[in-house]
Amino acid sequence: MDISSVVGLVLAFGLILASIMMGSAPFSAFIDIPSGLVVIGGAIAATMMCFPLKIMLGSPMAMMKVFLNKPQNPGSLIETLVSLAETARRDGLLALEGRVEEIDNTFIKMGVQMAVDGTQPDVIEAIMRTEMESINGRHKDNKAVLDQLGRFAPAYGMIGTLMGLIMMLSDMSDPSGIGAGMAVALITTLYGAIVSNVMFMPWAEKLNILNKQELTSLEIVIRGILSIQSGENPRVIQQKLETFLPPKARASKEGA
Amino acid sequence: MDISSVVGLVLAFGLILASIMMGSAPFSAFIDIPSGLVVIGGAIAATMMCFPLKIMLGSPMAMMKVFLNKPQNPGSLIETLVSLAETARRDGLLALEGRVEEIDNTFIKMGVQMAVDGTQPDVIEAIMRTEMESINGRHKDNKAVLDQLGRFAPAYGMIGTLMGLIMMLSDMSDPSGIGAGMAVALITTLYGAIVSNVMFMPWAEKLNILNKQELTSLEIVIRGILSIQSGENPRVIQQKLETFLPPKARASKEGA
Amino acid sequence: MDISSVVGLVLAFGLILASIMMGSAPFSAFIDIPSGLVVIGGAIAATMMCFPLKIMLGSPMAMMKVFLNKPQNPGSLIETLVSLAETARRDGLLALEGRVEEIDNTFIKMGVQMAVDGTQPDVIEAIMRTEMESINGRHKDNKAVLDQLGRFAPAYGMIGTLMGLIMMLSDMSDPSGIGAGMAVALITTLYGAIVSNVMFMPWAEKLNILNKQELTSLEIVIRGILSIQSGENPRVIQQKLETFLPPKARASKEGA
Amino acid sequence: MDISSVVGLVLAFGLILASIMMGSAPFSAFIDIPSGLVVIGGAIAATMMCFPLKIMLGSPMAMMKVFLNKPQNPGSLIETLVSLAETARRDGLLALEGRVEEIDNTFIKMGVQMAVDGTQPDVIEAIMRTEMESINGRHKDNKAVLDQLGRFAPAYGMIGTLMGLIMMLSDMSDPSGIGAGMAVALITTLYGAIVSNVMFMPWAEKLNILNKQELTSLEIVIRGILSIQSGENPRVIQQKLETFLPPKARASKEGA
Amino acid sequence: MDISSVVGLVLAFGLILASIMMGSAPFSAFIDIPSGLVVIGGAIAATMMCFPLKIMLGSPMAMMKVFLNKPQNPGSLIETLVSLAETARRDGLLALEGRVEEIDNTFIKMGVQMAVDGTQPDVIEAIMRTEMESINGRHKDNKAVLDQLGRFAPAYGMIGTLMGLIMMLSDMSDPSGIGAGMAVALITTLYGAIVSNVMFMPWAEKLNILNKQELTSLEIVIRGILSIQSGENPRVIQQKLETFLPPKARASKEGA
Repeated sequence: MDISSVVGLVLAFGLILASIMMGSAPFSAFIDIPSGLVVIGGAIAATMMCFPLKIMLGSPMAMMKVFLNKPQNPGSLIETLVSLAETARRDGLLALEGRVEEIDNTFIKMGVQMAVDGTQPDVIEAIMRTEMESINGRHKDNKAVLDQLGRFAPAYGMIGTLMGLIMMLSDMSDPSGIGAGMAVALITTLYGAIVSNVMFMPWAEKLNILNKQELTSLEIVIRGILSIQSGENPRVIQQKLETFLPPKARASKEGA
Repeated sequence: MDISSVVGLVLAFGLILASIMMGSAPFSAFIDIPSGLVVIGGAIAATMMCFPLKIMLGSPMAMMKVFLNKPQNPGSLIETLVSLAETARRDGLLALEGRVEEIDNTFIKMGVQMAVDGTQPDVIEAIMRTEMESINGRHKDNKAVLDQLGRFAPAYGMIGTLMGLIMMLSDMSDPSGIGAGMAVALITTLYGAIVSNVMFMPWAEKLNILNKQELTSLEIVIRGILSIQSGENPRVIQQKLETFLPPKARASKEGA
Repeated sequence: MDISSVVGLVLAFGLILASIMMGSAPFSAFIDIPSGLVVIGGAIAATMMCFPLKIMLGSPMAMMKVFLNKPQNPGSLIETLVSLAETARRDGLLALEGRVEEIDNTFIKMGVQMAVDGTQPDVIEAIMRTEMESINGRHKDNKAVLDQLGRFAPAYGMIGTLMGLIMMLSDMSDPSGIGAGMAVALITTLYGAIVSNVMFMPWAEKLNILNKQELTSLEIVIRGILSIQSGENPRVIQQKLETFLPPKARASKEGA
Repeated sequence: MDISSVVGLVLAFGLILASIMMGSAPFSAFIDIPSGLVVIGGAIAATMMCFPLKIMLGSPMAMMKVFLNKPQNPGSLIETLVSLAETARRDGLLALEGRVEEIDNTFIKMGVQMAVDGTQPDVIEAIMRTEMESINGRHKDNKAVLDQLGRFAPAYGMIGTLMGLIMMLSDMSDPSGIGAGMAVALITTLYGAIVSNVMFMPWAEKLNILNKQELTSLEIVIRGILSIQSGENPRVIQQKLETFLPPKARASKEGA
Repeated sequence: MDISSVVGLVLAFGLILASIMMGSAPFSAFIDIPSGLVVIGGAIAATMMCFPLKIMLGSPMAMMKVFLNKPQNPGSLIETLVSLAETARRDGLLALEGRVEEIDNTFIKMGVQMAVDGTQPDVIEAIMRTEMESINGRHKDNKAVLDQLGRFAPAYGMIGTLMGLIMMLSDMSDPSGIGAGMAVALITTLYGAIVSNVMFMPWAEKLNILNKQELTSLEIVIRGILSIQSGENPRVIQQKLETFLPPKARASKEGA
């Protein structure tokens, strides 16, 4: 569970609701179902035109990842890799075969298996990098869906407001209704701004950061596997890989 | 047929029409032919100045592709390439000549033909990459037309609204006409926003995604042809190429 | 003559004029010389501060190129290069000397001359690429002038409108003049939007596309000259260079 | 202490306060706690959704760095490196071990230690560059938090203003309250603009510049360490490294 | 003296002043000292927070360069380099020592000195490229100051206008003062737009162009020095370097 995302979402909606409660107008002044349909439905419709169905259908899963992601721990990844390096150094590369089963991380597993199979280092690197690129591409597609939702929601909000204004202006026989008409017209712009700034845009950003963190983990694995295969000293491997961590998170001390 | 695009387009226009129907103003309040001409005609005129005639004339075809594209299937591409690799391994590169006819994909055909002709690997790669770059360039031109239409439509909408406001303001003798005048003035801005957000901008994005998918397919073919020519093991080729697919779509299991 | 640019310009201005004609206000309501001076003069003045005098003075020529460019024909370029390759293959590189005179394209001429002079291939490539980079740089300067004009015109339009509003607001003794005052104030914004969207921005885009087409032609020439010098087979050269053309424009068939 | 940041902040707030004091309205007209909560709370909430908790918690420290950073002095870095180079040249690389203790800069220390340990130059460079990349990444995360705060503050300001306008418009029974209602509605937009332009956006820019300066220092160290290890002449090292300084700050004269 | 910048500045301010003179309002309606302080003072304060004091203090010098720069003449640079190449070819590299004194350009001097000293070509190139990168970095810092001023001036203009509107709206007891109040409120937006579009933004662009021109000159020098050191034919050097010039400015004819 991503506490930061949950607290942020609750806080943002809470502040908006509280500020409506404290205002003079009744809560109902801010509720208009057709406006909601134009803004959210319109944003989804426009985004559907942007992406193939498969990516669209995968996007709710991606949005859940904003809240349900587990914090990555590159430190434990490095521990695993260093431990594998020690085995390889002591008992030879083939000894890693016995340890494949105990590895959780599928990316490490794939690399170790190829190393055990005697695949050439440059082939291993090419395959792992293409895999990394594919993962990156799929994550970027998910982020792009949220980007487009966050960009179309305010646009459809503006379309709704323009329609509301035209309706209001084309019948101004009752001056007392002008204010109420404009209030309704503005609701779609408000919805578009809220939906975009409270949900889609921050979520897209979070997916972006999560992707960057995962790419770092994958990079650590690739470098670790290649170092293990070339028989480097486990201490040197550890020092190399820990440069990816912030200083405080490092187990070894530089040059120690 | 691209279901996602069709449903998105119908939904977006449907929501806008429904929201007009539910409003108090008659439908006719939203129809103004001259406004439509200024916005759509203006956007097309400005876009014509941006591109050579040939690209402009090709753009309706490109727009149809938003709705009529067939989903790409890189999985079957990989199957074809692996099957060619098996033939080449078993019976030699020249045996591929007999299979050229049965290949649908013109890009694979071109590569296999060059391999059979004994063209040097680096020449094959250079020719195929230039071809890929040319395809990419033509796709980007098509996307750029839609980008410009999506950018100029709101601009001409604003030009129309400014003209409408100036007309209205320069003759305010009849106060009761002010509202109607402003309503008409706003219609061009509304048209610009709708045309851009319901059509051109999402379509440009779809063409972008389709292009990226096709480039991935072309990349798979290039790597496959080069691997076949260098006589790699079909299983290794398959594993390499499948890194381009999402894990679920892979026929082989890693390291198996 | 670039038909697309001419038709686009006539159409864009035509639609705007027609829409004014059809409106209720007299044409004179849209004419205000001082407003025009602030917008166009201001945009030119700001752009003058951006560029050295030499680039500014060359920009009217560049704007004429938007309308007077001849469509490039890379197909005939390739024909010329292939014919030179045949001569070189049959009679040796030095035989090209006799054909230098008949070549129109100065870039091919320069390359052939260097090849005949026995210049090293890497020196030829370096010189031709620097030349290409210089041409690209000069084109980009011309495009940049139009970009800045297209960016400053609306800015000075807004400056004019703000000045008009301040004038109007600081003397509201005659309420009946308010509408007319605002109409005049809005004219500069209208001028800025028209000048930018009907002229400068589409023209900048056209120069951009023309530049990209010319760079492709130059790239074809560079690769052709280097292939000729290294004595490649004219058929292979043709196949290589035709990958730059769309499939329909190719004289040879792949793999034929 | 970063005088420029402190003076800038005091000056910006001072000018805004002075301009309010000089105005006709009471200071209280600009104070509205709920508005402040929506804008600042909302911006923080949206930013929390963008980043993992760890980065959010580190951002106050990063903001303090805007004011508490010490000016970097690459000149003294170069002096240290040249002095180390002299020792290494005179007494051998191992003689540096005795000087490790006196080095303050942890990055130089790390490099010298590796050089003394006899690590291969390419390994040293790889480790130091990864470290530099990690530092760069952490700095960019901190800057990104401020970027998002600076981008969401005006957005939540606009959300607040839209809510205020809807409240005001939905109850216009008392015309005399309209002005006051709009004044309150505009306060959130004002807060958003101030918070973003007086604090978050300039601070993000400062962190960006500080990061660039630090990267230059790290680059100097990397090149210095590698030059020391390869036994280059200390004078040449000095000349090489001083190209990173502006001419006036150089101790040696070129070619002297 | 940069005529283009001077004429542009005079013209832009002249048009704005003339257009005020021709208007109905007195000139004093456009003068408001506190507004000027908020906009210009605020923009400077925000920019101070962005940059270290040293860069801020250097920026007035950089702004003067917009008007006081001398047009670069790469043609004469090439002449100098070719003449040095002739000396080096005739009398050997060491003969250049006698000519070092007569060279004005410090960058050529630095290169020639290193060549005479027998520095390795790759070391010379590394040192000169780092120097070029440092110069580029310092120029970009200066441009960045103007960019930020040009970005913050309109922002503080909007802050001022919002404050003015809130003041006006919170006291509407005297309806006749509303117009005047709004006029004053708009003045800060006008100031922000003028300061940004007449001064900072065009100046930033000019610094950008001047920097690009200087980088081209430095690139010419680097290539020239390296060619001289490797003993290339002065005619070939001339032809190589003149590809950086537009065709008309070339002294030699291609292939001659």
